[in-house]
Amino acid sequence: MTSDKTASTPSPDFRFSRSSAHAPGAPVLAIVGDGQLARMMQQAAIELGLSARVLAGRPDASAAQVAADVVLGDYRNRDHVDEVAKGADAVTFDHEHVPNEYLDELIGWGVNVQPQPTALIHAQDKLVMRKKLREIGAPVPPFLAIESVADVQGFYDATNGAVCVKSRRGGYDGKGVWFPQSRQEAAELVERLLAEGVELLAEKKVDLVRELSAMVTRSPSGEVASWPVVESVQRDGICVEAVAPAPARGGDVIDAAEQLARTIVADLGVTGVLAVELFETVDEFGQPEIIVNELAMRPHNTGHWTQDGCVTSQFEQHVRAVLDRPLGDTRMTAPCTVMANVLGGSADPEMPMHERMDEVWRRFPGAKIHMYGKDWRPGRKIGHVNMSLPLGTSATAEAVAKLRSDAQLAATFLVGAIWSDGWRGE
Amino acid sequence: MTSDKTASTPSPDFRFSRSSAHAPGAPVLAIVGDGQLARMMQQAAIELGLSARVLAGRPDASAAQVAADVVLGDYRNRDHVDEVAKGADAVTFDHEHVPNEYLDELIGWGVNVQPQPTALIHAQDKLVMRKKLREIGAPVPPFLAIESVADVQGFYDATNGAVCVKSRRGGYDGKGVWFPQSRQEAAELVERLLAEGVELLAEKKVDLVRELSAMVTRSPSGEVASWPVVESVQRDGICVEAVAPAPARGGDVIDAAEQLARTIVADLGVTGVLAVELFETVDEFGQPEIIVNELAMRPHNTGHWTQDGCVTSQFEQHVRAVLDRPLGDTRMTAPCTVMANVLGGSADPEMPMHERMDEVWRRFPGAKIHMYGKDWRPGRKIGHVNMSLPLGTSATAEAVAKLRSDAQLAATFLVGAIWSDGWRGE
Repeated sequence: MTSDKTASTPSPDFRFSRSSAHAPGAPVLAIVGDGQLARMMQQAAIELGLSARVLAGRPDASAAQVAADVVLGDYRNRDHVDEVAKGADAVTFDHEHVPNEYLDELIGWGVNVQPQPTALIHAQDKLVMRKKLREIGAPVPPFLAIESVADVQGFYDATNGAVCVKSRRGGYDGKGVWFPQSRQEAAELVERLLAEGVELLAEKKVDLVRELSAMVTRSPSGEVASWPVVESVQRDGICVEAVAPAPARGGDVIDAAEQLARTIVADLGVTGVLAVELFETVDEFGQPEIIVNELAMRPHNTGHWTQDGCVTSQFEQHVRAVLDRPLGDTRMTAPCTVMANVLGGSADPEMPMHERMDEVWRRFPGAKIHMYGKDWRPGRKIGHVNMSLPLGTSATAEAVAKLRSDAQLAATFLVGAIWSDGWRGE
Repeated sequence: MTSDKTASTPSPDFRFSRSSAHAPGAPVLAIVGDGQLARMMQQAAIELGLSARVLAGRPDASAAQVAADVVLGDYRNRDHVDEVAKGADAVTFDHEHVPNEYLDELIGWGVNVQPQPTALIHAQDKLVMRKKLREIGAPVPPFLAIESVADVQGFYDATNGAVCVKSRRGGYDGKGVWFPQSRQEAAELVERLLAEGVELLAEKKVDLVRELSAMVTRSPSGEVASWPVVESVQRDGICVEAVAPAPARGGDVIDAAEQLARTIVADLGVTGVLAVELFETVDEFGQPEIIVNELAMRPHNTGHWTQDGCVTSQFEQHVRAVLDRPLGDTRMTAPCTVMANVLGGSADPEMPMHERMDEVWRRFPGAKIHMYGKDWRPGRKIGHVNMSLPLGTSATAEAVAKLRSDAQLAATFLVGAIWSDGWRGE
């Protein structure tokens, strides 16, 4: 999320806007952010007779490509944030990194910012989040603010070395998370990071059974709607797959996860979409339990399946919620939907992406491919594939396993132009 | 479809374009037309990593609001059509009114126009369409080119007065169609219209049981995919409702209709989406039969239900087809989906449209409301509502009747801000 422009004086090309981009009388939604989440919010807004205004770092950014009203600027520049907010009925985000002091100022001027900084802080600062969750009784791992080497050594001893060190701010997709392998390594890591000015906390590592994601939406008026909980699969800290609904494994953790998300969204005063990323683990009595891993206050990768598997997608729901409009039906429209991420590979194949898409469609005519208009870079999220079991079929373990395999084959082909099962056509 | 600009020399604001509107390496799709069909094609294109370039008559036109690459101009102006086509991988349309001689010129220069004028002529000229359909054995009503008053008098006598007079070109939504009530009225009508230079044909009026619509897509490579046939309801010549799938009534006309659409799309060389509007009637032996009413070569009002009731919507399918990419799965995702049109009423209610939408959502959280960003005008198509039976339910006659009633209630509220059943909330 870098920008060509950080000067506080807008240049003549500061705004690619057309006042005519917004239907007369319709609410104007401003989105700070230019990535795929903003792009897909615009796609959802179009359906509702709206078009989003986006603050984009580059004219060719994912969301800027598909919007008529673009403010070209930097979310860390107060003037640029002001400019995108001007006259908007609501201001929302596709990331959590806008300085809260800007947002407080906007709110002071009467701008409708959703979610508000008082909620956003819990998605920005993991220590604040952990403390608040503990306060409201949500399950969290043992954790400690790390302000010295002694802190981490003490925590290391207390957890028998099961330590995860995290940056309080700015980490995502596996960045800002460290797993020291020894007491010595923990001490050196913390010494170095503190010296660099990184604020830290430590958490007890969890013995993971699997990861779940509970997504929920709340409007400023207090209406709450939750989606079925999904199972998510992470690789190197990045989401690669989501399965909806999360397959039952015994115990009632799935219902508990959905309830927990509904509690958190209300107790933290979140508006718009909230993703509660969870670890499913096993307690000392061998019973399944859930622990909150992370919170995200915006549409989330583990909710992309809703575009093709639910009555109301997370993007439509977020747009509706931040404008304080009634929320939509969150029921599934398929017995099972699997989302597989398309992450840039170590090299970009010679076959152009649109030909790769065509190959996938030829093999899987039901594959819903969503591309973000983004250039390839290794590991970069450039698209995702949703695949669903057809109407009238049953989500048996075999059918779900086949669907997951098909979605992975499709995503893998989009990345590397190779069928990982050796398929050579019918 | 009027324009502020018809001069052949482009003014400086001729193009609101950004080259950065298109993802690097992705195909560029140019759409001639700025209405809701182009708008919803853009919505579908976003999913595929694309963004459309549109030729719009006004900067605030429905599709121009939501596109970054807009050529402001007139589809009847050769320079403007050239400009939107420049460098595009395919040129397509949201209406059939671009002069074919422009399109032939573009094709001569190597531009990829889909559908091509050789197919489009059948959606432009009802006499050409009738003759071609008769030639390929498709069921058409008795018809005659009307070039004199004597012609219509003879046709009137031959059909015992069951005469419908039609303009060969330019009619849609009930315009360009007349039902003279007497031999004298038929003669006077034709005399007047011929004097005005309107080219005419006459058709035998059909005793209608109901209307059906069979929609199909064909790519330039020859791949064909059809959706389930729907029942459509017209009022004053304008589509107000579509029910998918068309309820069975005995006889095999529904299968026949789907087959017929597949034959027509191939025999006429249509590319992209084709809508075959059909009359279901009863033959002389009391058996149901179908007769072709009209053809449209683009996404069609009777296909809007596919956005929320099918794996692949007509907009996505059209975009894929005209770019000669593999077609998507056309299976339904709900037991039944009903589309109800939102047509501007005789007056616009005081309650703003977004509040009307909110009221509808409060009563029907599963209502999928699609608005076009268009100002109100009496009778104008400004949006539509899709409602589906939930997963796991059955499309019984009662359930379908209730769904149709709910969709009509929703659409009627969006028009007039009144619940036509007197509902006052729970």
